[in-house]
Amino acid sequence: MSSEVRSQIEAANREFMAAFARQDAAAVAKLYASGGQLLPPNSDMVSGVDGIREFWKGTMAQGITAVTLETREVEPAGDGAVEVGRYRIMAGDALADQGKYLVVWKKEGGAWRLHRDMWNTSQPATGS
Amino acid sequence: MSSEVRSQIEAANREFMAAFARQDAAAVAKLYASGGQLLPPNSDMVSGVDGIREFWKGTMAQGITAVTLETREVEPAGDGAVEVGRYRIMAGDALADQGKYLVVWKKEGGAWRLHRDMWNTSQPATGS
Repeated sequence: MSSEVRSQIEAANREFMAAFARQDAAAVAKLYASGGQLLPPNSDMVSGVDGIREFWKGTMAQGITAVTLETREVEPAGDGAVEVGRYRIMAGDALADQGKYLVVWKKEGGAWRLHRDMWNTSQPATGS
Repeated sequence: MSSEVRSQIEAANREFMAAFARQDAAAVAKLYASGGQLLPPNSDMVSGVDGIREFWKGTMAQGITAVTLETREVEPAGDGAVEVGRYRIMAGDALADQGKYLVVWKKEGGAWRLHRDMWNTSQPATGS
Protein backbone atom coordinates (compact mmCIF):
# COMPACT_ATOMS: atom_id res chain seq x y z
CA MET A 1 0.00 0.00 0.00
CA SER A 2 2.66 2.46 1.06
CA SER A 3 4.93 1.38 -1.83
CA GLU A 4 1.98 1.81 -4.22
CA VAL A 5 1.49 5.37 -2.96
CA ARG A 6 5.21 6.00 -3.42
CA SER A 7 5.06 4.75 -7.03
CA GLN A 8 2.11 7.02 -7.77
CA ILE A 9 3.88 10.00 -6.26
CA GLU A 10 7.05 9.23 -8.18
CA ALA A 11 4.92 9.09 -11.33
CA ALA A 12 3.45 12.51 -10.49
CA ASN A 13 7.00 13.81 -10.00
CA ARG A 14 7.94 12.51 -13.44
CA GLU A 15 5.00 14.52 -14.85
CA PHE A 16 6.33 17.56 -12.97
CA MET A 17 9.83 17.13 -14.39
CA ALA A 18 8.53 16.55 -17.94
CA ALA A 19 6.24 19.61 -17.79
CA PHE A 20 9.08 21.72 -16.44
CA ALA A 21 11.53 20.47 -19.07
CA ARG A 22 9.15 21.58 -21.82
CA GLN A 23 8.75 24.92 -19.98
CA ASP A 24 5.01 24.42 -19.56
CA ALA A 25 4.21 26.32 -16.36
CA ALA A 26 0.45 25.74 -16.77
CA ALA A 27 0.98 21.96 -16.81
CA VAL A 28 3.21 22.20 -13.73
CA ALA A 29 0.55 24.23 -11.92
CA LYS A 30 -2.13 21.64 -12.76
CA LEU A 31 -0.21 19.10 -10.64
CA TYR A 32 -1.11 21.10 -7.53
CA ALA A 33 -4.29 20.61 -5.49
CA SER A 34 -6.96 23.31 -5.80
CA GLY A 35 -5.94 24.78 -2.42
CA GLY A 36 -2.27 24.17 -3.11
CA GLN A 37 0.44 26.36 -1.66
CA LEU A 38 4.10 26.96 -2.46
CA LEU A 39 6.51 27.94 0.30
CA PRO A 40 9.52 29.08 -1.76
CA PRO A 41 12.77 30.50 -0.39
CA ASN A 42 13.14 34.30 -0.62
CA SER A 43 9.41 34.74 -1.13
CA ASP A 44 6.22 34.85 0.86
CA MET A 45 3.77 31.96 0.48
CA VAL A 46 2.17 31.53 -2.95
CA SER A 47 -1.41 30.23 -2.93
CA GLY A 48 -3.74 28.94 -5.62
CA VAL A 49 -3.18 27.51 -9.07
CA ASP A 50 -2.84 30.93 -10.80
CA GLY A 51 -0.21 32.15 -8.37
CA ILE A 52 1.63 28.84 -8.61
CA ARG A 53 1.64 28.99 -12.42
CA GLU A 54 3.01 32.55 -12.38
CA PHE A 55 5.70 31.53 -9.89
CA TRP A 56 6.97 28.68 -12.08
CA LYS A 57 6.63 30.84 -15.19
CA GLY A 58 8.85 33.41 -13.50
CA THR A 59 11.38 30.71 -12.59
CA MET A 60 11.48 29.54 -16.20
CA ALA A 61 11.89 33.14 -17.39
CA GLN A 62 14.97 33.40 -15.15
CA GLY A 63 16.63 30.72 -17.25
CA ILE A 64 15.84 27.60 -15.22
CA THR A 65 15.46 24.83 -17.80
CA ALA A 66 14.94 21.70 -15.72
CA VAL A 67 14.16 20.41 -12.26
CA THR A 68 15.11 16.92 -11.05
CA LEU A 69 13.12 15.44 -8.15
CA GLU A 70 14.40 12.37 -6.32
CA THR A 71 12.08 10.83 -3.73
CA ARG A 72 13.81 9.75 -0.52
CA GLU A 73 10.79 8.84 1.57
CA VAL A 74 7.00 8.75 1.33
CA GLU A 75 4.91 8.37 4.48
CA PRO A 76 1.14 7.95 4.29
CA ALA A 77 -0.68 10.56 6.43
CA GLY A 78 -4.43 10.01 6.57
CA ASP A 79 -5.84 10.61 3.08
CA GLY A 80 -2.59 12.24 2.08
CA ALA A 81 1.10 11.50 2.11
CA VAL A 82 4.29 13.29 3.11
CA GLU A 83 7.31 13.12 0.81
CA VAL A 84 10.89 14.10 1.52
CA GLY A 85 13.27 14.29 -1.41
CA ARG A 86 16.20 15.99 -3.05
CA TYR A 87 16.09 18.37 -5.98
CA ARG A 88 18.50 19.70 -8.57
CA ILE A 89 17.74 22.82 -10.60
CA MET A 90 19.49 23.27 -13.93
CA ALA A 91 20.09 26.38 -16.02
CA GLY A 92 21.06 24.70 -19.27
CA ASP A 93 24.10 22.57 -18.48
CA ALA A 94 24.85 24.43 -15.25
CA LEU A 95 23.64 23.31 -11.83
CA ALA A 96 21.78 26.38 -10.52
CA ASP A 97 20.94 24.90 -7.11
CA GLN A 98 20.55 21.65 -5.24
CA GLY A 99 18.69 20.96 -2.05
CA LYS A 100 15.78 19.17 -0.49
CA TYR A 101 12.02 19.40 -0.38
CA LEU A 102 9.09 18.48 1.84
CA VAL A 103 5.79 17.97 0.03
CA VAL A 104 2.39 17.21 1.51
CA TRP A 105 0.39 15.36 -1.14
CA LYS A 106 -3.39 15.12 -1.33
CA LYS A 107 -5.59 12.94 -3.50
CA GLU A 108 -7.93 15.04 -5.63
CA GLY A 109 -10.17 13.59 -8.34
CA GLY A 110 -8.33 10.27 -8.02
CA ALA A 111 -4.90 11.80 -8.67
CA TRP A 112 -2.09 12.74 -6.27
CA ARG A 113 -1.64 16.49 -6.20
CA LEU A 114 0.89 18.69 -4.41
CA HIS A 115 -0.87 20.41 -1.51
CA ARG A 116 2.03 22.04 0.38
CA ASP A 117 5.39 22.34 -1.38
CA MET A 118 8.45 23.67 0.43
CA TRP A 119 12.13 23.46 -0.41
CA ASN A 120 15.47 24.97 0.46
CA THR A 121 19.05 24.79 -0.71
CA SER A 122 21.59 22.38 0.77
CA GLN A 123 24.44 24.54 -0.53
CA PRO A 124 26.44 26.70 1.93
CA ALA A 125 25.20 30.25 2.57
CA THR A 126 26.76 32.67 0.09
CA GLY A 127 27.52 35.15 2.84
CA SER A 128 29.57 32.69 4.95
CA MET B 1 -11.13 18.30 17.21
CA SER B 2 -9.00 20.12 14.69
CA SER B 3 -8.94 23.24 16.88
CA GLU B 4 -7.93 21.08 19.86
CA VAL B 5 -5.01 19.70 17.86
CA ARG B 6 -4.08 23.25 16.91
CA SER B 7 -4.10 24.34 20.56
CA GLN B 8 -1.88 21.43 21.54
CA ILE B 9 0.55 22.19 18.74
CA GLU B 10 0.60 25.87 19.68
CA ALA B 11 1.38 24.78 23.26
CA ALA B 12 4.27 22.62 21.98
CA ASN B 13 5.53 25.64 20.02
CA ARG B 14 5.45 27.72 23.20
CA GLU B 15 7.64 25.05 24.84
CA PHE B 16 9.99 25.29 21.84
CA MET B 17 10.22 29.07 22.13
CA ALA B 18 10.76 28.94 25.91
CA ALA B 19 13.47 26.27 25.63
CA PHE B 20 15.19 28.24 22.89
CA ALA B 21 15.00 31.51 24.84
CA ARG B 22 16.80 29.88 27.76
CA GLN B 23 19.35 28.47 25.26
CA ASP B 24 18.53 24.90 26.22
CA ALA B 25 19.25 22.91 23.05
CA ALA B 26 18.63 19.57 24.80
CA ALA B 27 15.09 20.66 25.76
CA VAL B 28 14.45 21.86 22.20
CA ALA B 29 15.65 18.50 20.83
CA LYS B 30 13.30 16.61 23.18
CA LEU B 31 10.34 18.20 21.40
CA TYR B 32 11.18 16.15 18.29
CA ALA B 33 9.89 12.64 17.62
CA SER B 34 12.39 9.79 17.99
CA GLY B 35 12.76 9.55 14.20
CA GLY B 36 12.60 13.31 13.81
CA GLN B 37 14.34 15.13 10.99
CA LEU B 38 15.37 18.73 10.37
CA LEU B 39 15.55 20.06 6.83
CA PRO B 40 17.47 23.32 7.39
CA PRO B 41 18.56 25.80 4.72
CA ASN B 42 22.24 25.63 3.71
CA SER B 43 22.63 22.17 5.22
CA ASP B 44 21.91 18.57 4.42
CA MET B 45 19.15 16.80 6.38
CA VAL B 46 19.75 16.34 10.12
CA SER B 47 18.32 13.15 11.62
CA GLY B 48 17.86 11.91 15.18
CA VAL B 49 17.63 13.66 18.51
CA ASP B 50 21.43 13.95 18.99
CA GLY B 51 21.95 15.54 15.59
CA ILE B 52 19.01 17.86 16.18
CA ARG B 53 20.37 18.93 19.57
CA GLU B 54 23.80 19.69 18.05
CA PHE B 55 22.18 21.66 15.25
CA TRP B 56 20.27 23.93 17.64
CA LYS B 57 23.28 24.18 19.95
CA GLY B 58 25.29 25.39 16.94
CA THR B 59 22.59 27.92 16.09
CA MET B 60 22.63 29.26 19.65
CA ALA B 61 26.46 29.43 19.56
CA GLN B 62 26.15 31.65 16.47
CA GLY B 63 24.37 34.24 18.62
CA ILE B 64 20.72 33.39 17.94
CA THR B 65 18.92 34.19 21.17
CA ALA B 66 15.27 33.59 20.38
CA VAL B 67 12.88 32.06 17.87
CA THR B 68 9.25 33.13 17.47
CA LEU B 69 6.81 30.65 15.92
CA GLU B 70 3.40 31.80 14.73
CA THR B 71 0.98 29.10 13.59
CA ARG B 72 -0.96 29.98 10.44
CA GLU B 73 -2.69 26.66 9.79
CA VAL B 74 -2.91 23.16 11.26
CA GLU B 75 -4.39 20.35 9.20
CA PRO B 76 -4.93 16.88 10.70
CA ALA B 77 -3.25 14.15 8.60
CA GLY B 78 -4.03 10.65 9.85
CA ASP B 79 -2.41 10.22 13.28
CA GLY B 80 -0.37 13.34 12.65
CA ALA B 81 -0.87 16.94 11.65
CA VAL B 82 0.67 19.39 9.21
CA GLU B 83 1.40 22.93 10.37
CA VAL B 84 2.32 25.96 8.30
CA GLY B 85 3.57 29.02 10.13
CA ARG B 86 5.87 32.01 10.18
CA TYR B 87 9.06 32.38 12.18
CA ARG B 88 11.26 35.21 13.34
CA ILE B 89 14.82 34.60 14.53
CA MET B 90 16.43 37.13 16.84
CA ALA B 91 20.06 37.81 17.64
CA GLY B 92 19.57 39.92 20.74
CA ASP B 93 17.48 42.90 19.65
CA ALA B 94 18.25 42.39 15.96
CA LEU B 95 16.02 40.44 13.60
CA ALA B 96 18.40 37.83 12.13
CA ASP B 97 15.86 36.28 9.77
CA GLN B 98 12.16 35.88 9.11
CA GLY B 99 10.39 33.30 7.05
CA LYS B 100 8.02 30.39 7.09
CA TYR B 101 8.00 26.77 8.13
CA LEU B 102 6.27 23.50 7.33
CA VAL B 103 6.18 20.99 10.17
CA VAL B 104 4.79 17.46 10.14
CA TRP B 105 3.78 16.62 13.72
CA LYS B 106 3.40 13.13 15.17
CA LYS B 107 1.92 12.00 18.45
CA GLU B 108 4.46 10.08 20.52
CA GLY B 109 3.82 8.98 24.11
CA GLY B 110 0.69 11.13 24.18
CA ALA B 111 2.55 14.31 23.21
CA TRP B 112 2.81 16.14 19.90
CA ARG B 113 6.37 15.98 18.59
CA LEU B 114 8.01 17.51 15.53
CA HIS B 115 8.60 14.75 12.99
CA ARG B 116 9.70 16.69 9.90
CA ASP B 117 10.73 20.34 10.32
CA MET B 118 11.59 22.51 7.32
CA TRP B 119 11.86 26.27 6.96
CA ASN B 120 13.18 28.93 4.65
CA THR B 121 13.60 32.67 4.61
CA SER B 122 11.01 35.03 3.16
CA GLN B 123 13.61 37.78 2.78
CA PRO B 124 14.96 38.63 -0.69
CA ALA B 125 18.03 36.73 -1.91
CA THR B 126 21.20 38.57 -0.91
CA GLY B 127 22.69 38.12 -4.37
CA SER B 128 19.81 39.83 -6.20
